Amino acid sequence: MKTQRTLQQPIIGIDVGGTKIAAGIVDTQGKIISSIQRPTVVTNSEATLDCIANVAKELLKVNGISNEDIDAIGFGIPGLVDAEKGMGIASVNLNWENVPVRAGLETRLGVRCVIDNDVRTGAIGELRFGNGKGVQNLVYLNIGTGISAVIVLGGKIYNGVNGLAGEIGHAIQVPNGPFCKCGGRGCLEAVASGPAIAARAQEKIRTGRESVLSDEYLGSSQSLTVQKVFQAETVGDQVACETLIEVGKLIAYALQYLALAYDPNMIVIGGGVIQGSAHLYRLIQEQLEELATNSWVFRKVYTKDLIKLSSLGIYTGVLGAAALVAPEFKK
Amino acid sequence: MKTQRTLQQPIIGIDVGGTKIAAGIVDTQGKIISSIQRPTVVTNSEATLDCIANVAKELLKVNGISNEDIDAIGFGIPGLVDAEKGMGIASVNLNWENVPVRAGLETRLGVRCVIDNDVRTGAIGELRFGNGKGVQNLVYLNIGTGISAVIVLGGKIYNGVNGLAGEIGHAIQVPNGPFCKCGGRGCLEAVASGPAIAARAQEKIRTGRESVLSDEYLGSSQSLTVQKVFQAETVGDQVACETLIEVGKLIAYALQYLALAYDPNMIVIGGGVIQGSAHLYRLIQEQLEELATNSWVFRKVYTKDLIKLSSLGIYTGVLGAAALVAPEFKK
Repeated sequence: MKTQRTLQQPIIGIDVGGTKIAAGIVDTQGKIISSIQRPTVVTNSEATLDCIANVAKELLKVNGISNEDIDAIGFGIPGLVDAEKGMGIASVNLNWENVPVRAGLETRLGVRCVIDNDVRTGAIGELRFGNGKGVQNLVYLNIGTGISAVIVLGGKIYNGVNGLAGEIGHAIQVPNGPFCKCGGRGCLEAVASGPAIAARAQEKIRTGRESVLSDEYLGSSQSLTVQKVFQAETVGDQVACETLIEVGKLIAYALQYLALAYDPNMIVIGGGVIQGSAHLYRLIQEQLEELATNSWVFRKVYTKDLIKLSSLGIYTGVLGAAALVAPEFKK
Repeated sequence: MKTQRTLQQPIIGIDVGGTKIAAGIVDTQGKIISSIQRPTVVTNSEATLDCIANVAKELLKVNGISNEDIDAIGFGIPGLVDAEKGMGIASVNLNWENVPVRAGLETRLGVRCVIDNDVRTGAIGELRFGNGKGVQNLVYLNIGTGISAVIVLGGKIYNGVNGLAGEIGHAIQVPNGPFCKCGGRGCLEAVASGPAIAARAQEKIRTGRESVLSDEYLGSSQSLTVQKVFQAETVGDQVACETLIEVGKLIAYALQYLALAYDPNMIVIGGGVIQGSAHLYRLIQEQLEELATNSWVFRKVYTKDLIKLSSLGIYTGVLGAAALVAPEFKK
């Protein structure tokens, strides 16, 4: 039996990423009151559901909230999601297919759960509370463990015929490039996501380039993370700097494509990777400026204000997930 | 003073391309009754307007139609067009900027003229009479002297904020690739349009590859045309075959991007280049099949029926231009 939350009940949103899970309690003004972040377990779907449920339980516990205090919890889930049926249809980053996510979480938590795609909840967060507030035609590009876009046209999310509109992370960006988790080669996600950035730097080290990251990772089975690459850039490491220049160009090309394809009022970029390096964002901006300087067609759609970094930071997804269970957040 | 055409008046549509102009008289069922095609003069904007007007005059003359017999003529004009103001804002292929096209044609023809962007009129032709009839979410990709797409969402053309939605011909497809007329490098249009296909084959010949086209073009100032490349492919010429394989891949990548970005019901491809070589279209289909076989994400949006060749052939644009002045063509 579905109930409606009362105004006194806390609003809880949980953003599940391929690398980490962010959970937060949100007030009625869209402010985060309390939050935690934990790594995502992706060994198998049951373990992932356990992990998500444990983060929810921990958030409730540290805030002294019991199940009776809440009406429902909202979740942003990576990959293709059937929100109505509560199914995780497929996710390359959680490595699952046809998982009854809602039922699995409700069993574990004993509370009503509402799920939707994580990038879509991110876009909802931006539309309600972020830079995208009130924008009619908005593209929200998420760059994290995965890459995808959500398209807002006339103030409403445009899903496409199969719910996949904006899945440009799996369009070929570099022909014959690195393999992607989707099975393709050189997809945008395979060359510019967090893991792709780390792999690119690691490949440079493997082929003998000197780097502050060399000792730690050369010949080791341990994999480099994108955060380590970002840190190395801040101390002027050449491998890290080059990696970010290369990736910045690829992301700029993707943004140019989105700008020309949709000619929107605004493109907001969010996600763990783009939030993790101000330098990478600056490189992307520089590349876009250069593209606009060169091409008079691109110049007609591109202005300095067209592309904005998410103002909600890592909490875009939490706010959007919270909006799934907070009717007062809807316009 | 604007009048409305009577049902007895002939409906005339003229499709102005960067290479040729197609003009036709259309019946009320959308059938072409009479048509002519002439090359486009692009030396300067006055000469181009003269050329367009002369094609219109010729069509009227051979059909024994006088100005008094018609209410208006519809024109599809390349590049960025302000339909309301009747202005050709900019066209790389006609090499013009801010040309008062409507006024120029009305002065020359002494009849009311209605203009719109040529790819948009092509999409209107497909929506009214072609494979796209009744399709709610349709992408119409035009591949000719230029490349651009028109987006139909919910049965209506989506223009974007600056009227440039779908201008993906000027997104970078090959970083540091050949220069594009827009000033960019490696734009889709600079690597896969008609002139780009010819230039690619010519470059292979220049670097010493043997070809049936060599004698005619090597060291000559005459430029190869895409039609000559298509002809050479039909006799098994290696340079032509390789050129089409390379270009087919690039066009397939663009179609994949459009499919993932919009997740539409259908993508229709039209334009002189794609209509000129069944082999090129087959190569594109094969490449798309391969992309869908590899990537499970792309497989979710791609079916054999997703992408269709325009069934109206070279007359898509004529029919769409005619629809600009025939209220009975509107749904």
